[in-house]
Amino acid sequence: MNYYIGIDLGGTNVRIAKVDDDGRIIQDVIAPSHGKEGPETIEANILELLSQFDLTGVRSIGLAIPGPVDGEKNIITMATNIPGCEGYPFADNMEKVTGIPVFLDNDANAAGLAEAVLGAGKGYNEIYFLTHSTGIGGALVINGKVISGHKGYAGEVANVIVDPNAKQYPIYAHLNRGGVETVASGTAIGLIGKDLIGPEGDSSRKLFTLMKEGNKQAEAIIDKMSKDLATCLAAISAICAPDCFVIGGGCSHSSEMYFDRVREYFKSMAHENMRDVPILKAALEEPGVLGAAMIGRSHLE
Amino acid sequence: MNYYIGIDLGGTNVRIAKVDDDGRIIQDVIAPSHGKEGPETIEANILELLSQFDLTGVRSIGLAIPGPVDGEKNIITMATNIPGCEGYPFADNMEKVTGIPVFLDNDANAAGLAEAVLGAGKGYNEIYFLTHSTGIGGALVINGKVISGHKGYAGEVANVIVDPNAKQYPIYAHLNRGGVETVASGTAIGLIGKDLIGPEGDSSRKLFTLMKEGNKQAEAIIDKMSKDLATCLAAISAICAPDCFVIGGGCSHSSEMYFDRVREYFKSMAHENMRDVPILKAALEEPGVLGAAMIGRSHLE
Repeated sequence: MNYYIGIDLGGTNVRIAKVDDDGRIIQDVIAPSHGKEGPETIEANILELLSQFDLTGVRSIGLAIPGPVDGEKNIITMATNIPGCEGYPFADNMEKVTGIPVFLDNDANAAGLAEAVLGAGKGYNEIYFLTHSTGIGGALVINGKVISGHKGYAGEVANVIVDPNAKQYPIYAHLNRGGVETVASGTAIGLIGKDLIGPEGDSSRKLFTLMKEGNKQAEAIIDKMSKDLATCLAAISAICAPDCFVIGGGCSHSSEMYFDRVREYFKSMAHENMRDVPILKAALEEPGVLGAAMIGRSHLE
Repeated sequence: MNYYIGIDLGGTNVRIAKVDDDGRIIQDVIAPSHGKEGPETIEANILELLSQFDLTGVRSIGLAIPGPVDGEKNIITMATNIPGCEGYPFADNMEKVTGIPVFLDNDANAAGLAEAVLGAGKGYNEIYFLTHSTGIGGALVINGKVISGHKGYAGEVANVIVDPNAKQYPIYAHLNRGGVETVASGTAIGLIGKDLIGPEGDSSRKLFTLMKEGNKQAEAIIDKMSKDLATCLAAISAICAPDCFVIGGGCSHSSEMYFDRVREYFKSMAHENMRDVPILKAALEEPGVLGAAMIGRSHLE
């Protein structure tokens, strides 16, 4: 049996798992990542945790990072939650210590790859994965491999303009006016809810609850969010024509409140021959660490 | 030396060329395609023309089609300019006669592939090619291969919404309001020119000439077209992050009138780490038939 180590590195915690070809977790550990203490500390901590694992039969190590990664150079391009890690040679260093090839990728790409090869996207050739959470990220997976794109930016859909007339909240000054993250992310609808409803509607969670209770304003906000998300999916569909969409992230836990609306709006904007493309809810409980493991495997194939 | 046959099938003409690995045309022929006379006539005509070629050393035949192609099934999905050809087994039939593997793809994909591997995109890993002509089509090429997408629709960007408030002309009733083809194609700016300037500004060619003569209305129309095109490029950039854009098609012959504007608008909307992505003019004189030949080659690799 072949095994793959997956390392899901976040700003707060790091999770490491040994995974087999079927995506089963054989052994795992979770610990603080020391994410703010610089790359040397982060790396020493990971190597210390890795020493608890039996690495016999492990063919690759995949490291999932909270930010864009240059897949060709195998380095981090930008790392907001783990400052100072841009360009740091994690892969080279860890390869020297372990003797196992190490591959880096963005955490949204890793989650997307896991969903594509082990989760909701299993069986499809081209999958576009979206994280619908406080922000909106994504990943394009074709033939079992993540498409990295220029400097690792493929899938970073936050900036796709879906409503150029939308209100521009100050926290989104760095993004395009009407970029999908600025109007349809969990954080964005919380801001809109606060404006229109007040403190009792100032988060995506509160809005979903209010909508369930029959609040029409909350429903209108969720409906607009669904339309804006669908506009982004329709653009993706016209640009790279995935065989399915998979949506994960915090908001997707309330999929029953908005996925059908997204599907209807998508059908109204997609080409007639693309309207049958399924919009699926992410299926995996641990996409981060599984995806990190699959990142490594996909580079070996 | 390996050779590849490229067949560029249009509604009016068919062009066939024997091409070597360096993209040199060794032998070629152009003839009426009998495009409206049904698939059997089209095929018999192609086979008749092919019989003039020495097929020694020919490793593949690529057939470029004016419409989307299902690359996996190797059949035509939709064929407006060669009616009745949907689903017709051109590849199987021609393989039986010639004994050489035959591969189909869309003509924009073929042109994009030619530009990617032999033209302006040579040396880049991921290339997004746009045809900027009477319509707007495109192709996504990664690692020397065209990404086909669901039912062959990758690259069919016409429907990407770039200005949801734009006037919807009746001829574009089948597309989204504000879809890039409805506001930035050669045909679209001709309609806008006719509305705003009159018959002397009712085509892209006339508008470029007027702009050169200092006409401010024509300049404003070209400027808006540049912005709308750039909005589409910025969406492509956020969704699949190509390493370069290549723009071909009739309008691109006037690149000096608008490419710099497209580049400026693109920079204002793309992520800061994507602003260096070059927007290049297509370089090949014969992308159609060369691309058809490269389509075949890309399937052998």
